[in-house]
Amino acid sequence: MKRILGVMGGASCTPDEAELARGAGRMIAQRGFVLLCGGGAGVMEAAARGAKEAGGLTLGILPGSNAAESPPNPHIDLAVFTGLSDARNAINVKAAEAVIAIGGGPGTLSEIALALKNGKPVLALRTWAVSREGADLERFHPVETLEELALILDRLGFARAH
Amino acid sequence: MKRILGVMGGASCTPDEAELARGAGRMIAQRGFVLLCGGGAGVMEAAARGAKEAGGLTLGILPGSNAAESPPNPHIDLAVFTGLSDARNAINVKAAEAVIAIGGGPGTLSEIALALKNGKPVLALRTWAVSREGADLERFHPVETLEELALILDRLGFARAH
Amino acid sequence: MKRILGVMGGASCTPDEAELARGAGRMIAQRGFVLLCGGGAGVMEAAARGAKEAGGLTLGILPGSNAAESPPNPHIDLAVFTGLSDARNAINVKAAEAVIAIGGGPGTLSEIALALKNGKPVLALRTWAVSREGADLERFHPVETLEELALILDRLGFARAH
Amino acid sequence: MKRILGVMGGASCTPDEAELARGAGRMIAQRGFVLLCGGGAGVMEAAARGAKEAGGLTLGILPGSNAAESPPNPHIDLAVFTGLSDARNAINVKAAEAVIAIGGGPGTLSEIALALKNGKPVLALRTWAVSREGADLERFHPVETLEELALILDRLGFARAH
Repeated sequence: MKRILGVMGGASCTPDEAELARGAGRMIAQRGFVLLCGGGAGVMEAAARGAKEAGGLTLGILPGSNAAESPPNPHIDLAVFTGLSDARNAINVKAAEAVIAIGGGPGTLSEIALALKNGKPVLALRTWAVSREGADLERFHPVETLEELALILDRLGFARAH
Repeated sequence: MKRILGVMGGASCTPDEAELARGAGRMIAQRGFVLLCGGGAGVMEAAARGAKEAGGLTLGILPGSNAAESPPNPHIDLAVFTGLSDARNAINVKAAEAVIAIGGGPGTLSEIALALKNGKPVLALRTWAVSREGADLERFHPVETLEELALILDRLGFARAH
Repeated sequence: MKRILGVMGGASCTPDEAELARGAGRMIAQRGFVLLCGGGAGVMEAAARGAKEAGGLTLGILPGSNAAESPPNPHIDLAVFTGLSDARNAINVKAAEAVIAIGGGPGTLSEIALALKNGKPVLALRTWAVSREGADLERFHPVETLEELALILDRLGFARAH
Repeated sequence: MKRILGVMGGASCTPDEAELARGAGRMIAQRGFVLLCGGGAGVMEAAARGAKEAGGLTLGILPGSNAAESPPNPHIDLAVFTGLSDARNAINVKAAEAVIAIGGGPGTLSEIALALKNGKPVLALRTWAVSREGADLERFHPVETLEELALILDRLGFARAH
């Protein structure tokens, strides 16, 4: 079975966020993981592009029922249409071993939260900050750069897929 | 059509959170709204109890497929079993006009996020703080007491259901 | 907790099917059950109308994320928007104790199937016929008239909600 | 983007059904399509095995939230855990261009129905028969053998993925 890492982020993003997402996608593919994302534009497209540049495989979990409702970005190999609207966010985190969140709006925040709920590590790159008194945020890792991202992925056991 | 307000929060909670949830449930019913919650224990049970004490109607949206998987708390009038696990959180926010979040873990955080994504006001009572540079948090209302909750509900147009 | 019976059927239907649905909705309410349906037009609207005529409560589980996407019919008391598209059909059957299917297209056929999979009785009124060698269809009850429907509901323990 | 064909069927099956599923999986891979299935045992496992024997790629859409709840069969390359229970059946049909149904219980019947609802061809191999006066069953193709399956796939434009 292939191992899967997810990149979550907004359908629109800044050039900086896109560059980070592309780098994260490349890193995921270079380490031998499949890239999972929401399949759309912005951060999702940049991450998928990076993964393809590094020869990886890309899996998009889309909110719409078909390509007319949710056009996959051009770097998606496997488009899984769900028709679930926001409920598809829960699949994004269940199907990935860990989640890299980059930028993003409240949809990305929901994926951060659902990842934590499912015990998945979240690597947070210039995205939401969350806090609550007494909350267990051991699996929430704010990172600033791709170098830091690489280090934390190493430390968490995602150095090589196999 | 009856108007619906939601109370979201953890399946386990402190006595203080339970007391706030009960008060919020009572307030929702007194104003003529149906109380929606996740149907389970903790904050959900306290909110449903409060709504029933004030003569209201309670709707529980449960993650399991049946009562064996997701036992509804004893104050739920209408149990909607979904079998969706975490994806049911998206329904909680789509079916309610506004969401009151009390305490809670990452599941509650996901509901806060999904409510914001769906343009629904979130009244945050001793729950998560969220922030992101440039994020539109106009609909996120941190409140400390039931009195404040009442004031914000008034201001947002939830003084009376009809 | 209130007991719930579902009526499933197409968003467009013949006048005969509408009349049967209205009668089924009335019967459900007269017996003290809440009527659950998909919340839309056609069979769903007729069933909800019948339930309201008999003083009942009606619950609509809608495929869209809000009233703009899925306008509830005017006889729905509680509209639960899901945003799930076809996946909402699974909720229709999990939230009801038994399902009355009237007319309908392939969406209704999926609800018949999912009801059987969840061990729920299906009362099939001029709707799909299904068969498979060796299949257990013990819970599939084809009926022709409202009188027959009443008899089978009696026999299955749905004479009175309480 | 890779093109996807689905094989649906029961988690338990007869040796004959398994042999058909294996042949169908092999055929899908030989034609250059990705095999999608529910990821579990029985027909799903046999189809994935056939696809892998022919050098294909396999995608399993699983009902549980993780491998403990829904163990993927050993021939699945990409396991997409959904946590959706029966609602995942809607994804199976939305993510595939056509559905081959083999044997199966009511879950498979729901996938046949949802495929028809989504305008996807159904190739029905010793599975459910469905009928309804006036129903449009143009896309429902009962077939008896793998030879017939190949012919219909050719005719429907699934001779080669690219």
